[in-house]
Amino acid sequence: MAKPKRKAGGAGGPGQKAGSEPVAYVGILGKGTVGAAFKALLEERAEMVTEVSGRRPKVTGALSRKRGDFEKILAASDVIVELIGGIEPARGYVIRALEAGRDVVTANKQLVAQHGSELVAAAKRGGAQLRFEAAVAGAIPVIRLLQESLGAVPIERVSGIVNGTTNYILTEMARSGISYREALAQAKKLGYAEADPSEDVNGADAAAKMAILARLAFGAPVELDQVSYQGIEQVTADDIAYAKELGLSLKLLGVAERLGDEISVRVFPCFLYPGHPLAPVSGPFNAVMVQAPTINEITLSGPGAGGEETATAVLGDVVSVLTGGSPLFEESAKLKLAKDVRSAFYLHLEVEDVPGVLAKVAEILGENEVSVRSVVQRGLGDDARLEMVMHEVSERRFEAALKRIARLKFLRSPPRSIRVIEEEFG
Amino acid sequence: MAKPKRKAGGAGGPGQKAGSEPVAYVGILGKGTVGAAFKALLEERAEMVTEVSGRRPKVTGALSRKRGDFEKILAASDVIVELIGGIEPARGYVIRALEAGRDVVTANKQLVAQHGSELVAAAKRGGAQLRFEAAVAGAIPVIRLLQESLGAVPIERVSGIVNGTTNYILTEMARSGISYREALAQAKKLGYAEADPSEDVNGADAAAKMAILARLAFGAPVELDQVSYQGIEQVTADDIAYAKELGLSLKLLGVAERLGDEISVRVFPCFLYPGHPLAPVSGPFNAVMVQAPTINEITLSGPGAGGEETATAVLGDVVSVLTGGSPLFEESAKLKLAKDVRSAFYLHLEVEDVPGVLAKVAEILGENEVSVRSVVQRGLGDDARLEMVMHEVSERRFEAALKRIARLKFLRSPPRSIRVIEEEFG
Repeated sequence: MAKPKRKAGGAGGPGQKAGSEPVAYVGILGKGTVGAAFKALLEERAEMVTEVSGRRPKVTGALSRKRGDFEKILAASDVIVELIGGIEPARGYVIRALEAGRDVVTANKQLVAQHGSELVAAAKRGGAQLRFEAAVAGAIPVIRLLQESLGAVPIERVSGIVNGTTNYILTEMARSGISYREALAQAKKLGYAEADPSEDVNGADAAAKMAILARLAFGAPVELDQVSYQGIEQVTADDIAYAKELGLSLKLLGVAERLGDEISVRVFPCFLYPGHPLAPVSGPFNAVMVQAPTINEITLSGPGAGGEETATAVLGDVVSVLTGGSPLFEESAKLKLAKDVRSAFYLHLEVEDVPGVLAKVAEILGENEVSVRSVVQRGLGDDARLEMVMHEVSERRFEAALKRIARLKFLRSPPRSIRVIEEEFG
Repeated sequence: MAKPKRKAGGAGGPGQKAGSEPVAYVGILGKGTVGAAFKALLEERAEMVTEVSGRRPKVTGALSRKRGDFEKILAASDVIVELIGGIEPARGYVIRALEAGRDVVTANKQLVAQHGSELVAAAKRGGAQLRFEAAVAGAIPVIRLLQESLGAVPIERVSGIVNGTTNYILTEMARSGISYREALAQAKKLGYAEADPSEDVNGADAAAKMAILARLAFGAPVELDQVSYQGIEQVTADDIAYAKELGLSLKLLGVAERLGDEISVRVFPCFLYPGHPLAPVSGPFNAVMVQAPTINEITLSGPGAGGEETATAVLGDVVSVLTGGSPLFEESAKLKLAKDVRSAFYLHLEVEDVPGVLAKVAEILGENEVSVRSVVQRGLGDDARLEMVMHEVSERRFEAALKRIARLKFLRSPPRSIRVIEEEFG
């Protein structure tokens, strides 16, 4: 996948006059926030890029929706940096560039999540490098960790807080006791949420990122529609209060795990115990924890994807592309999607204050082999509720129980459940 | 620095029969714990290395103190993996290999810390790659972060818990209230401390690692004797109790920072406020936080350097070396060592219970422009003591004040001070 003709070859050592190093021509697609931030950063850091990679970067052109000619930029460039976002025209440009033997760096999570295999095939045909660190978790080097540091290690599980908007909202709800709506409004005001935040708050954005991480972790094709996801729109102040009382954190977690010959990739809100490496991750920060034999777990954390963080990640990829070869990206593993996984659950039931309620709920849980770890009955009369925590159980069985519980006539509102992660760490 | 002739070249794609990929011959120096773990891991993961790098690794030989011929192994190898440790004969072998154009992966922190520039020069002469991720913080990819992800970013500060032995000891002292001696004995028993743990507990091990991180972060030569260090041997149960009471963590921290045209690299025990990203790092774990404009801060954490973790880091480097070029490692920056830095301090004084003590101490502090943030007087009679926290101040001024305070005749024991990091995060 590497191209000897374009190597640094140690030619750019110190003592040379500026300008005498081989030039690397960089074409930028996209002139939005990230595009502008990257162009400024590349120009500002040109000297340092030259020192580290041995090649002096020069921008050949920047394509916007209205200006610039893609074919002209392509012809003049060694490296194409795609910062347009979305599928088309980004997909067409990237494939064309890779096939023409141009190394490509992209920050486009939807493109990589939905068309990763196609891009890799194009890179192989063209003998070009493809890098996409900025597509997941901003400048946190999680792609590099999975592809390079742990490139030859069988990964067991990747858990991530990969959406800064939702983590900011959940953190603020816990910190100041405000409602989901208030926290969302605040996030918009501070620029942590977009005008239309639906992809963030419903979990779809995190799902795309987890699909990318799962492919890299397991070397198996993972399609976006194989990732089940749930967002934070249903999280209530009650859930947060419960978490606070027990010292738990409520996070929107992405989990990609290997279960024998199967894998499971999911995004869901869940309670984390205090010792969990992702529990302290707060505000708009992102973090990813990777578990594998021989390494126990490694956790990376940092700010999510703002314009500057993304530009920084893109710059790191450009440096790597100029420096040498990129790892191959194989999807040779045959792993089926798991039909069922095991989780522990918290269950919140608002019930009428009549005798026999707990007995009936316990009976249904028992019949579905759901074992109760703790129960607290709270409130009286119109405020009576049950807060239960289950031991780890097949999610299918728990859902079956939940369906039956939802039909009980003494329930004052639909049952609410949240996963709980109680694994021991450290 | 890359060698086109040895590139993967995309030849190792899927669908090829095992054995048809170009072979990468790997010579291993050292047959100790890490050497054995690496050899086993490389053989176990050979298929995956082949998939990711396009080349099939084959071990040419393993050199031990008693067996094997270095020159023979060198002649037969494309890559030399140095896991002997210590300076000689490791240094001679590595330089010979690099000059002969063999890529080298080493886990040897002393070698890189003391002879880094020499190794880099040899790598340039030979047109070979040099990688050393395993030299600092086991499998946590901090070298990669500094050299590649942030290779073209001006780093402001690197803070690290880079010694697992001391972090285990401090964690246990805080957790179960045992003394330093008891915690050390326990660490030895569990294999977290060596029979002779002096390099770990006196801070020298952390200092070598911080010297390596500082060179990479600032692109400037940092000699081992420019790193000031202090260990944890003087930490008392009192200090830990104080930390616990205020919700602080006591850590052995390495800090490399840029202060204008100067840098400072130091290792010292210090109190961290709860929001600090390194505060939750407990037990034998390591963690490194990197601060730079455009990224805020990125924190990496994971297990320290056990045999398997180190072998995993070495394997990641081997994969990268087989895949392509390594970043250049320039030390072109002209940065002087700072003669003074600013820190906040905790000061513990055991005093005679007589009037005027606090006034005298406060007077000396004031004359040295040390400003007091809080004072608590505790105990009576023979147990009277002052616990003070200072605002950030020039370390020189604080030391000058401390010297004068130490001479006060109402002190029952020498004054004890510990740095405090109170920066805001998140």
